[in-house]
Amino acid sequence: MGWDAKMKLYDTKTAPNPRRTRIFLAEKGISVPTEQVDMTAFQHRSPEYTAINPFQRMPALVLDDGTVITESMAICRYFEALQPEPALFGQGAREIGLVEMWNRRAEINFFANVAAVFRHLHPAMKDYEIPQVPAYAEAMRPKAIWFLELIDKELGSREFIAGERYSVADITTMVAVDFMKPSRIAMPEGLTNVKRWHAAVAARPSSKA
Amino acid sequence: MGWDAKMKLYDTKTAPNPRRTRIFLAEKGISVPTEQVDMTAFQHRSPEYTAINPFQRMPALVLDDGTVITESMAICRYFEALQPEPALFGQGAREIGLVEMWNRRAEINFFANVAAVFRHLHPAMKDYEIPQVPAYAEAMRPKAIWFLELIDKELGSREFIAGERYSVADITTMVAVDFMKPSRIAMPEGLTNVKRWHAAVAARPSSKA
Repeated sequence: MGWDAKMKLYDTKTAPNPRRTRIFLAEKGISVPTEQVDMTAFQHRSPEYTAINPFQRMPALVLDDGTVITESMAICRYFEALQPEPALFGQGAREIGLVEMWNRRAEINFFANVAAVFRHLHPAMKDYEIPQVPAYAEAMRPKAIWFLELIDKELGSREFIAGERYSVADITTMVAVDFMKPSRIAMPEGLTNVKRWHAAVAARPSSKA
Repeated sequence: MGWDAKMKLYDTKTAPNPRRTRIFLAEKGISVPTEQVDMTAFQHRSPEYTAINPFQRMPALVLDDGTVITESMAICRYFEALQPEPALFGQGAREIGLVEMWNRRAEINFFANVAAVFRHLHPAMKDYEIPQVPAYAEAMRPKAIWFLELIDKELGSREFIAGERYSVADITTMVAVDFMKPSRIAMPEGLTNVKRWHAAVAARPSSKA
């Protein structure tokens, strides 16, 4: 699917939330003109980008009519509505509910905690997260591990995070697992189901987007 | 709309997330058999409730077939799919994107920060949030205020949080504003647009749900 040249996705290759949107688009087979915003050069805090997104967060999608949609999951839902197949937020009330449940469980109990460890402990983040609260990072670290242990049991009885179909809950969980490395959180030993699942989702071409 | 007697919503009258689900259902005109779970008596950590939701969070919806859907917004999306009208997550790709954007902005930059102040500072929460990190609460408090100031400017040019129609973004923002009181965060002076908007959404019968 192609788009009017005025549509543009403001993306940052190194950040986890924009990666969720890129993987989602790759799974849909949608390509959008992209402009890189270099967060290491604080371009996301420039007056130009702040005019696009006053929250100074990545990514942002500008539509042909100038409407700005920010938040990685909101951009994904925009494209899911435009092009429903393949359905990555579920189909039918029950699956829609379960995909949203697992996507949010992964965000709140895992992704947010991995990100907290990165933002509140990593020396490179001291000019991004003001003030850093290292004690908060240390409090969230075991919660992230707890989620992995729980999901390892869940993945003993089904193929993907939210059920038998790949969904946005797999995207969120995979991106957060991969973000453990810069956050310096070691993957616990064992967790054979998580390893099997991660190998499968990481082998999809979309994971390289 | 009525439901099979086996469907049940596990609810906690005093907690903000279950309130989001109750308001959503009231706006839809949907009634579901409800069972109260007393978080002050730690019933959400009982073996019975943990078997329903291992995350020990409220609310949870049990469907007629035994499927459990947790996370307030996932339960709302389940009912939006079953009964699309009135559309509280938007209609059409653009509005769906904007409602999700504002709902998430309100959750991430406001609701979560108000909740952080409550959970990490309030003496009554010491057995719920282990460990409490007061420095984190103090770091999040000004971010919550910043969101209110931003939304006050936004509400100068439109009626509701995400546009000209009441949506789930209004539910989230109103519930978070009302949760400032137990969190002991004072509403800043001025913010006349926030006050006008809050009076309007609080006057809807659903706000009493």
